[in-house]
Amino acid sequence: MIAIYPGTFDPITNGHINIIKRGLNIFDTLIVPVAANLQKNPLFSLQERLTMVRETLMEENINNVIVESFDNLLVDFVKSRNCNVVIRGLRAVSDFEFELQMAFMNRELDSSIEMMFMMPSIKYSFLSSSIVKNVFFHKGNIKNMVPHVVAKALIKKLQEG
Amino acid sequence: MIAIYPGTFDPITNGHINIIKRGLNIFDTLIVPVAANLQKNPLFSLQERLTMVRETLMEENINNVIVESFDNLLVDFVKSRNCNVVIRGLRAVSDFEFELQMAFMNRELDSSIEMMFMMPSIKYSFLSSSIVKNVFFHKGNIKNMVPHVVAKALIKKLQEG
Amino acid sequence: MIAIYPGTFDPITNGHINIIKRGLNIFDTLIVPVAANLQKNPLFSLQERLTMVRETLMEENINNVIVESFDNLLVDFVKSRNCNVVIRGLRAVSDFEFELQMAFMNRELDSSIEMMFMMPSIKYSFLSSSIVKNVFFHKGNIKNMVPHVVAKALIKKLQEG
Amino acid sequence: MIAIYPGTFDPITNGHINIIKRGLNIFDTLIVPVAANLQKNPLFSLQERLTMVRETLMEENINNVIVESFDNLLVDFVKSRNCNVVIRGLRAVSDFEFELQMAFMNRELDSSIEMMFMMPSIKYSFLSSSIVKNVFFHKGNIKNMVPHVVAKALIKKLQEG
Amino acid sequence: MIAIYPGTFDPITNGHINIIKRGLNIFDTLIVPVAANLQKNPLFSLQERLTMVRETLMEENINNVIVESFDNLLVDFVKSRNCNVVIRGLRAVSDFEFELQMAFMNRELDSSIEMMFMMPSIKYSFLSSSIVKNVFFHKGNIKNMVPHVVAKALIKKLQEG
Amino acid sequence: MIAIYPGTFDPITNGHINIIKRGLNIFDTLIVPVAANLQKNPLFSLQERLTMVRETLMEENINNVIVESFDNLLVDFVKSRNCNVVIRGLRAVSDFEFELQMAFMNRELDSSIEMMFMMPSIKYSFLSSSIVKNVFFHKGNIKNMVPHVVAKALIKKLQEG
Repeated sequence: MIAIYPGTFDPITNGHINIIKRGLNIFDTLIVPVAANLQKNPLFSLQERLTMVRETLMEENINNVIVESFDNLLVDFVKSRNCNVVIRGLRAVSDFEFELQMAFMNRELDSSIEMMFMMPSIKYSFLSSSIVKNVFFHKGNIKNMVPHVVAKALIKKLQEG
Repeated sequence: MIAIYPGTFDPITNGHINIIKRGLNIFDTLIVPVAANLQKNPLFSLQERLTMVRETLMEENINNVIVESFDNLLVDFVKSRNCNVVIRGLRAVSDFEFELQMAFMNRELDSSIEMMFMMPSIKYSFLSSSIVKNVFFHKGNIKNMVPHVVAKALIKKLQEG
Repeated sequence: MIAIYPGTFDPITNGHINIIKRGLNIFDTLIVPVAANLQKNPLFSLQERLTMVRETLMEENINNVIVESFDNLLVDFVKSRNCNVVIRGLRAVSDFEFELQMAFMNRELDSSIEMMFMMPSIKYSFLSSSIVKNVFFHKGNIKNMVPHVVAKALIKKLQEG
Repeated sequence: MIAIYPGTFDPITNGHINIIKRGLNIFDTLIVPVAANLQKNPLFSLQERLTMVRETLMEENINNVIVESFDNLLVDFVKSRNCNVVIRGLRAVSDFEFELQMAFMNRELDSSIEMMFMMPSIKYSFLSSSIVKNVFFHKGNIKNMVPHVVAKALIKKLQEG
Repeated sequence: MIAIYPGTFDPITNGHINIIKRGLNIFDTLIVPVAANLQKNPLFSLQERLTMVRETLMEENINNVIVESFDNLLVDFVKSRNCNVVIRGLRAVSDFEFELQMAFMNRELDSSIEMMFMMPSIKYSFLSSSIVKNVFFHKGNIKNMVPHVVAKALIKKLQEG
Repeated sequence: MIAIYPGTFDPITNGHINIIKRGLNIFDTLIVPVAANLQKNPLFSLQERLTMVRETLMEENINNVIVESFDNLLVDFVKSRNCNVVIRGLRAVSDFEFELQMAFMNRELDSSIEMMFMMPSIKYSFLSSSIVKNVFFHKGNIKNMVPHVVAKALIKKLQEG
């Protein structure tokens, strides 16, 4: 069985990896669509984000994950892959309310889609892509927060200015 | 009796219409001040938003609503209309906290103003102007989310680029 | 115009009085149904609670309030009074969620009923009947929390054992 | 693939049925363990609750659901069925916090168990077993809230006193 | 400097111990008043709870903590010890709202008292006395949740019936 | 004993002053690091914010506070001052979740740092720097919300355009 785990992954964190591993305990294959999300003005280009997700999965020996880009509505992407399960990570109450709102909207747009929420390990329950960027640009140590590939990409991004 | 239902209405949604109808079940007349809200950088100009609200009310045969623009502090607008009741729609907990904060601030500024909170129909409890814009610009179907007038205005906005 | 402000009032607090006064700034008359609420095992009997509410209103010179008992479903009580507005006080997020749930249930039972939420003065935002009882039975000073009538009734209750 | 959807089901509501149907869109079989939960002092006996769940599933033509009682720790039940996925319904923020706490505790007790959260249809987002009982015992109409079997069982319970 | 860390401790958990250790990183001495709290109908008697707290502190080599019982209002206890700082542990949003309410009430009763909130280690953020009791009575393993002394006391309690 | 009360203070409000006074009831000295926070695009320059904080403390006769600027990670600043207590003000649930996340991240970065949360007086529980700016630029009266020095600085900022 296939499930979809969408995100912006700007950049992918150990929390995302944790959800991907948990998803693969339940589903045979995960499709991970990386949203272009240009309105959010991401730090990394779509191509950089796709590469980081793919290299991280290789580094961690995680198989059965298909990484793709997408720029349309999530429900349209899901339909186009003949799939009806979307996985979302849940950490805090603020997450939860936003996710609930998006889930009801998606269901309004396509009633056949089911959103399932999973929790990362408790040690990642504080982690988000924006916290990683914030800590890094204030010269904090992020090595326990992101995969090796992402740490290197952040350093490179800093050097480029 | 008159009550005031303020908003940015960028654009007006079926959830807003639902609250207006509910307000008119209780109050004789509603004044709907459309906030200029230039700091939020709205998609539609103040004039476009005023027109959409007015045309929607006509289309839906809703009477006894006065649509105006305003650019000052809500409490000053309310005082200038000899009114002391402000209606706000409530959907989620995050809404609620923000509204509570604004309401206590308004009361600090003018203790005679009462804010009353109403809930839209449950089917609109996921709906907001930003969700409508987000779905539309990802080519999703918004026809159950906004009045006819707004759907047309969004298409025109898209064509203009 | 008439609105209904229901509660258990075990006992009535200064926060309840505050909402009643605010309600009367908007509506001509309030009906205050005191719920029997026997499953909650109230400290004061229904008769004691009715008396305390009525004496408090007299003491505070608040007119245009009709105090009644009720033991059936809120929506049935509301219908029987030819009224469609129910006022509820809102203090905290936990209040809010419970109220939202009750409001949607009431609407399911009778779609013509509108629930409106009002906030007490900020100084009463921590106050509830259970906090009053808890403070009182630990010998704390409750004179700023409840009307005079209620303070006396609590002392009498304590003496009776 | 098998998932477990545990609950007290005192009584089963249309919201529970909705989650069961959604679960069966994803998983081949659901095991529904009905918790004895004697400390909560349920209205219906374990046997009555088991019967209501089973009859409801038959009435609704829902197959591939195994209904069982359980009286031990959820994680032990899950392990004994060679399963690692537990489904929970999520409605509101207060639900969410409690579920998060239980999920982290279950993971502490057995790290191989994954809890997945699903949302009922928006029209059931106000519904709970306690609301059903509360409405019913105040003589409200519950026919849109529970299966036919449960409505009959409630009437019988009322007649028995 | 002295601070007060009150609770019911029915029983004391590793989360409580964690907050005590954190409090001692800041304050010279902690007073830990164990509330009689008879209305909550505790599992362990006040004497048993006092003994468990004291033995746990000895076992963990934690000094500079004074363990006492109290049965009056927290603010009166605090005043009687010539102290003005109360520490409370915070885990979740529901905790937070309740604590906020209690803190504002305490301040109303005695404006000189400051409540300070501290967070336990993230691994204890799911832990509470009721969860421990619930897991234990369903035969779950609680050895990572409570001190050794408490685990033994729970087993004894179970044997006594 | 020394504690650290960091912030952006754009501008300092009466709520911040309230927390500073409460902090000094407990700790001998407070260090108040004013974050450069250029990514948030503050209204006042770092130098203006530092001056406003210092002048306010003088005007209010508050001693034992060291005001400094900082542009690095909070945990690094804290370490460099040989201090391990950070104070944060808590107002609402949304504050709380964000603070929890930051606190767990800080603890991950340096486990010796303790964050303690304090509540301002209830009358400041609606107040924030952004609300002050919002009210002021809509010509509302902010004299009960900010120190005298800040009110003057806002007027000057308005005149400069």
